[in-house]
Amino acid sequence: MADDKPNCKVVLANNIAKSLLEEVHTGLKKIDRKPHLVGFLSSADPAARVYAEWTGKTCRENGFAFTLREVDRELLEDALLDANTDTAVDGIIVYYPIFGSRQDQYLQQIVSLNKDVEGLSHRYIFNMYQNIRFLDPESTKKSILPCTPLAVIKILEYLRIYNTILPYGNRLHGRHITVINRSEVVGRPLAALLANDGAHVYSVDIDDVQEFTRGVGLRKRRHEVVEKPGWTVENCLPISDVVISGVPGDKYKVPLHLLKPGAVCVNFSSERNFAPEVKEKASIYVPAIGKVTIVVLLRNLLMRQKRRS
Amino acid sequence: MADDKPNCKVVLANNIAKSLLEEVHTGLKKIDRKPHLVGFLSSADPAARVYAEWTGKTCRENGFAFTLREVDRELLEDALLDANTDTAVDGIIVYYPIFGSRQDQYLQQIVSLNKDVEGLSHRYIFNMYQNIRFLDPESTKKSILPCTPLAVIKILEYLRIYNTILPYGNRLHGRHITVINRSEVVGRPLAALLANDGAHVYSVDIDDVQEFTRGVGLRKRRHEVVEKPGWTVENCLPISDVVISGVPGDKYKVPLHLLKPGAVCVNFSSERNFAPEVKEKASIYVPAIGKVTIVVLLRNLLMRQKRRS
Repeated sequence: MADDKPNCKVVLANNIAKSLLEEVHTGLKKIDRKPHLVGFLSSADPAARVYAEWTGKTCRENGFAFTLREVDRELLEDALLDANTDTAVDGIIVYYPIFGSRQDQYLQQIVSLNKDVEGLSHRYIFNMYQNIRFLDPESTKKSILPCTPLAVIKILEYLRIYNTILPYGNRLHGRHITVINRSEVVGRPLAALLANDGAHVYSVDIDDVQEFTRGVGLRKRRHEVVEKPGWTVENCLPISDVVISGVPGDKYKVPLHLLKPGAVCVNFSSERNFAPEVKEKASIYVPAIGKVTIVVLLRNLLMRQKRRS
Repeated sequence: MADDKPNCKVVLANNIAKSLLEEVHTGLKKIDRKPHLVGFLSSADPAARVYAEWTGKTCRENGFAFTLREVDRELLEDALLDANTDTAVDGIIVYYPIFGSRQDQYLQQIVSLNKDVEGLSHRYIFNMYQNIRFLDPESTKKSILPCTPLAVIKILEYLRIYNTILPYGNRLHGRHITVINRSEVVGRPLAALLANDGAHVYSVDIDDVQEFTRGVGLRKRRHEVVEKPGWTVENCLPISDVVISGVPGDKYKVPLHLLKPGAVCVNFSSERNFAPEVKEKASIYVPAIGKVTIVVLLRNLLMRQKRRS
């Protein structure tokens, strides 16, 4: 509490990952067989290989079995179908981009629902947007959520942005959140998840701003999207309690002068979307999320495994 | 999650009081003697008698001893001085108004620091405004806080508005709070307490608006106050996450159309400052706080007792 240093809590992904890993380790003890994740590498992108190696390392360090299968991309579909029916395989992860086209989306639907730990199957994506949380009417089998958006959710839970005094499903009621990036992989599903949990979300893309909400008083069962013509970050940032940014590349920086004092800032870009001066204004700053994403993957795998046993 | 009913969690003071009482009961078990609270009734105000009886009932129900001493107001000062040195008295509460003038403030300073459970001694009030949390340099003896403002703090803790991931003392960093009422008894100390804990506070009175903050990045050790010329609730409410109102009488109502959707609303007036429609827009609503205030009094008494033993 000196008179010259700002008070901003910088929370590293590693610490959040540790707390999630405890939950994973507890879950592991309850099942008899070590879960087996198989990764398929058919991508020429060096980042894909790095991610594959990183998955393997994290699996082995935490009591999971991991096999990497390097497959010619023309043979990948058959290899996935084999893995789908192979009882020795508990979960499947595929490293993209492969064709870098719509064919990649086609391949994502090849992995069977029971082995998809990334949450990319249409059924899971549909449930996510529709705010349907279980696969069965008895609400015993949880629907899987995509890893990166779920990692952000887990981070906001860790940071107590989710208020546990509110009922499950509404715990972001009253939070105003800006998400910068509206990709189909992270930005848009994240905005939908946050709004489905009760937040008032401003989804910012290079072209426009959209508002994702469940309406005043959260009357709607799931979010709806409204265009905000003429809006930019100039309108969103000053009214946002939480700012989540994931613009690829090292050029984009969130304009810090627009931040509401004491905002919570989370960066999910591989580059830093927030200049270091964010600490002058934010109450909490999470500079990177990668380590949480990989633990969320293990958590999804464990959920699949528990369902099978 | 129907399509027509708003989602607002109404939290009753009774439930918050229960949770605080558990803490009090645990504390009681650790001391050998039943704490003895003495109430002095010299007031002609019937509300003072009601409050006195209510204190007695709550004390007896929760393992505290209570004695009510009805004293002619001209003899009160001597009676208080006697109680100050009486080892059979652990805590003193005086029911105001008595003279209804500055003489009442004089009497408040008669109760000794060790027996003041209401937190009205100048030393305690000074520490509160100065953000000094302990009486001793070794930080072993906590400074007592006035009951009603502290009750509001305890409510905001219960509602998770205090974020425990932030360091103690800064847990309201990023919260924007409007307090309507700036009395010396509740409104102004409450605004100061909230700002000292890191909040950005708009203190609204009939005449003007003042901003209580520790500066951007909470650089200041304690809050500072800045006038906001021309501001009214029209400016404060739309940017406030939490709205706390305590305007006496049944005429004043918070203008609900100005509320930020999902705001947290707390009423500390004996009348309702929020119309029932607040539930259309708020995420959490606390209609009254009286039952929490009295438990906070017992908690203060217990803190004094622990210090003596």
